Amino acid sequence: MTNFAKTFIQKNMKYGIIGVGAIGGYYGGMLAKAGKDVHFLFHGDYSVACRHGLQIDSYKGNFHLDDVQAYRQATDMPPCDVVLVCLKSTRQHLLRELLPPLLHDDTLVVLIQNGIGLEEDVQRIFPTVQLVAGLAFICVDKVAPAHIRHQQLGRINFGNFSCRDEARLLHLVADFTAAGIEAQAVDYLTARWQKAIWNMPFNGMTVALNTTTSGLLAHPATERLLHRQMLEVIRAARRLGVRDFDDRLADKMLAMTKAMQPYLPSMKLDHDFGRPMEIDYLYTRPIAQAKAAGEAMPCLEMLEAQLRFIEAARPAKEA
Amino acid sequence: MTNFAKTFIQKNMKYGIIGVGAIGGYYGGMLAKAGKDVHFLFHGDYSVACRHGLQIDSYKGNFHLDDVQAYRQATDMPPCDVVLVCLKSTRQHLLRELLPPLLHDDTLVVLIQNGIGLEEDVQRIFPTVQLVAGLAFICVDKVAPAHIRHQQLGRINFGNFSCRDEARLLHLVADFTAAGIEAQAVDYLTARWQKAIWNMPFNGMTVALNTTTSGLLAHPATERLLHRQMLEVIRAARRLGVRDFDDRLADKMLAMTKAMQPYLPSMKLDHDFGRPMEIDYLYTRPIAQAKAAGEAMPCLEMLEAQLRFIEAARPAKEA
Repeated sequence: MTNFAKTFIQKNMKYGIIGVGAIGGYYGGMLAKAGKDVHFLFHGDYSVACRHGLQIDSYKGNFHLDDVQAYRQATDMPPCDVVLVCLKSTRQHLLRELLPPLLHDDTLVVLIQNGIGLEEDVQRIFPTVQLVAGLAFICVDKVAPAHIRHQQLGRINFGNFSCRDEARLLHLVADFTAAGIEAQAVDYLTARWQKAIWNMPFNGMTVALNTTTSGLLAHPATERLLHRQMLEVIRAARRLGVRDFDDRLADKMLAMTKAMQPYLPSMKLDHDFGRPMEIDYLYTRPIAQAKAAGEAMPCLEMLEAQLRFIEAARPAKEA
Repeated sequence: MTNFAKTFIQKNMKYGIIGVGAIGGYYGGMLAKAGKDVHFLFHGDYSVACRHGLQIDSYKGNFHLDDVQAYRQATDMPPCDVVLVCLKSTRQHLLRELLPPLLHDDTLVVLIQNGIGLEEDVQRIFPTVQLVAGLAFICVDKVAPAHIRHQQLGRINFGNFSCRDEARLLHLVADFTAAGIEAQAVDYLTARWQKAIWNMPFNGMTVALNTTTSGLLAHPATERLLHRQMLEVIRAARRLGVRDFDDRLADKMLAMTKAMQPYLPSMKLDHDFGRPMEIDYLYTRPIAQAKAAGEAMPCLEMLEAQLRFIEAARPAKEA
């Protein structure tokens, strides 16, 4: 039997979702709606999810899941074939406790998180686990407990970091596709750095200037600055071995963002709600990797410094 | 008779002050207190100055001038030997009207203003006038009409741009010195760019991060960023022909600022009071000069873009 055939025999991959915020709620909800076996680890929203289920308001059509396989503790959850880690990267330390109960020998752990350096750090703690990066191009937020609003886009790119079983990765892509989510497997470094091209300028700049994506793009000075910051990311990525990035990617991303509704990136929401910002994985780590490869990112290094100042200037809530 | 002797015969240079805000009020007030013949062109504070005189609260000792030679219109003023232009550079267009009545054939016009490119622009309008740059290292603000508060420092550096009569420049330095102000004549480019090393980082960064000089210096990330921005100015200045700047000037300026009380630079006050910010002469012009000489200033170019955005985001009052 070929691997390809095996893939389609593993009909019922069991999914575990760690962190049911906007991202985990949306992708987990879409998989569950498509009939997949999805187990959700809730934090504060557990009781609401048990009583009322999970509500998804999507521009592609609203839906409600009455029966959610909801858990309050990871130790109550079954071992899963795929675990989607949808925590903020500022809470990554929790994985030491939350991940082990969900693992069996072949579990695929997908880090649907923003930033650079995440897989390296998780692999250090769990040396044999199979890791995949999940890069979501989506505008989604949580408007109330267990109530997600999906505003725009939705595509997810998977990048193989240490998955030994290519068939399982293809199965994951197939499951997402079957659930109505545009999904594909791409080169790991390309996946992570492609998202960084958008994330690094827009997340920090909306915080630094207290505005939306559209606010930044409405002014020529800031639009030029975003373009320059994108080039810093593109050139760093090329230096680190990503071959297929050329400078025109910056123009494409700006054009794509202009076509979007005004949007508050996740770091802006984190800042506005007094939550810690994901500065480490969104700025410090990629800047350090670029510098180690001989590439400076002066504007993004300045943005990082401003964000550190802004975070220190206000009391952050518990991570 | 030597030029040197001539200098000390011109006992009574007539001074005109255009723009009696914090800077014009302080230096003009100090000269008047020392017995110099000083004519003040007021804007909004004319009536208060006529009725109550000029009050200077200085850390070196308060004083009051009962009789101020105050004018409401430049056309009522006498031709002067020295005109101190103390307008915000955002109001530079007013000089076309305000300056001519104060000029005689040998008038020295001293631009006590922040930025790069000011003398070039004024010289284009008044091709034969003798211009000197005045760079004030002083913390001073206006707390009420015709009421100045002098908080810290006070030194002024003069840089000869197009003064044909060296003796008159020395006389100017002597008058300031006699009035109790630390003053010296230095190389023109050195004078302008030395001040820019401090101005470019601190003015914009206190606006961008809504804080004081001390607030910026209290955090290692922003302190490093200020240092980096200072190096951008120092290297641009060297590229433009300023020979005696070395990188350690950045450390010295940071140390000097740490020794100061928490301070709100003039651009921060302009922003807080809804006045136009001096972005053109403080950022756009020096950045353009540096670029023309082949030197990029990435962090300061980013700061300029942020300031343009911030200015556009709020309604500015009349310039």
